[in-house]
Amino acid sequence: MRVEIWADIACPWCYVGKARFTKGLAGFAHRDEVEVVFRSFELDPHGPKGVTAPVVEVLAKKYGRTLDEARGMEEHVAASARGEGLEYRVEGRDNGNTFDIHRLLHLAAARGRQEELLDLVYRANFAEERSVFDPEVLVALAVEAGLEEAQARTVLADDQAYAEDVRADEREAAELGANAVPFFVLDRRYGISGGQPAEVFTQALEQAWAGREVTAPEADGGETCEPDGACAVPGA
Amino acid sequence: MRVEIWADIACPWCYVGKARFTKGLAGFAHRDEVEVVFRSFELDPHGPKGVTAPVVEVLAKKYGRTLDEARGMEEHVAASARGEGLEYRVEGRDNGNTFDIHRLLHLAAARGRQEELLDLVYRANFAEERSVFDPEVLVALAVEAGLEEAQARTVLADDQAYAEDVRADEREAAELGANAVPFFVLDRRYGISGGQPAEVFTQALEQAWAGREVTAPEADGGETCEPDGACAVPGA
Repeated sequence: MRVEIWADIACPWCYVGKARFTKGLAGFAHRDEVEVVFRSFELDPHGPKGVTAPVVEVLAKKYGRTLDEARGMEEHVAASARGEGLEYRVEGRDNGNTFDIHRLLHLAAARGRQEELLDLVYRANFAEERSVFDPEVLVALAVEAGLEEAQARTVLADDQAYAEDVRADEREAAELGANAVPFFVLDRRYGISGGQPAEVFTQALEQAWAGREVTAPEADGGETCEPDGACAVPGA
Repeated sequence: MRVEIWADIACPWCYVGKARFTKGLAGFAHRDEVEVVFRSFELDPHGPKGVTAPVVEVLAKKYGRTLDEARGMEEHVAASARGEGLEYRVEGRDNGNTFDIHRLLHLAAARGRQEELLDLVYRANFAEERSVFDPEVLVALAVEAGLEEAQARTVLADDQAYAEDVRADEREAAELGANAVPFFVLDRRYGISGGQPAEVFTQALEQAWAGREVTAPEADGGETCEPDGACAVPGA
């Protein structure tokens, strides 16, 4: 079975939701048969590259609240994160354009290191005093994830590298009706929106597993080979 | 959209079917949004490693025919292949255990070179005077596909390398009800069995594209972030 998770690394509920999904997956009997793929989704695709602002200030402005009130909103999210055993810093985090991070995550996917990099990026952004909007931090994280430094630098320096992969993921999200993240899709059949409790994920995995079947309107008539090497051959 | 193709490289209809699928895909308007993944399926999983026999002899024995009659059966397949613009040699091909080839194809997948290697292996087996049951040929094909020679040798020398990936693909085929190959699965939703005409693939792709939607019984209630950075925050 295959689970696709649309997420943005700037999205707190994606960070929390991934931890909850991971717990839900651990409670699923067929967990070893599940492939997890991360898909790009930018919360702020139009934000200018290289321009960042403190999260608390952005929240205060967006909701018309004081900085203290905005800090209180962040503390609510932080409490959820800590409830999942995740560290969460309310102060010192920046908001910004995440396109380059998504491009780098696609390089990591091509090298089989996507989840490693994603976890490191989440951790740097939400738990550590490291800015994921600093290209040097991204290079260091890529190396920690097992990528080659030169490759990471090449991708970051070339705006077009993996850009189409990011956009294709985002088009797919729109086509599947996902307009908020995290968004989880099980075998392209079941969608789960948001950072649900772990048991919701376990149940959804069980339901999707039980419902696995392939509609095969064109299943007959094609020439095939069967095990033991018997191929449909005219005149055989 | 994602298309998974279960196939064995020893399967003539998989070779022909891939060419037909490729033509069908070329006629599909959203072809650039289609990801194609190849999945392992062994026609002869119990065949001893390192033991091969000429295909014509194997066919004659299986169907109780003379060698000439078996050659005639192969000529029928060859005619279909040539009809797709593929070279096909009736004589000089061997049958054998393809487990190591599938393991190598999984290495190639991890390096983003799976289709390149698959096409080269098909071509070596069906069109060229090269035995894909010779490890040195496989190493050469891997290098042609862009893999590192040392990695290919390491994988071929270690029976366990990517073995579980091959078996997982085969378990999935069984769970999806595929008992012959090629077997095409579109977005885990539509199955197409056999080397169908190209237009059948185009129609199936169109049908699967039109039917894209995700059942979302748990779509509500999870905490999400929306574009423009609006996250569900208690008290916001």
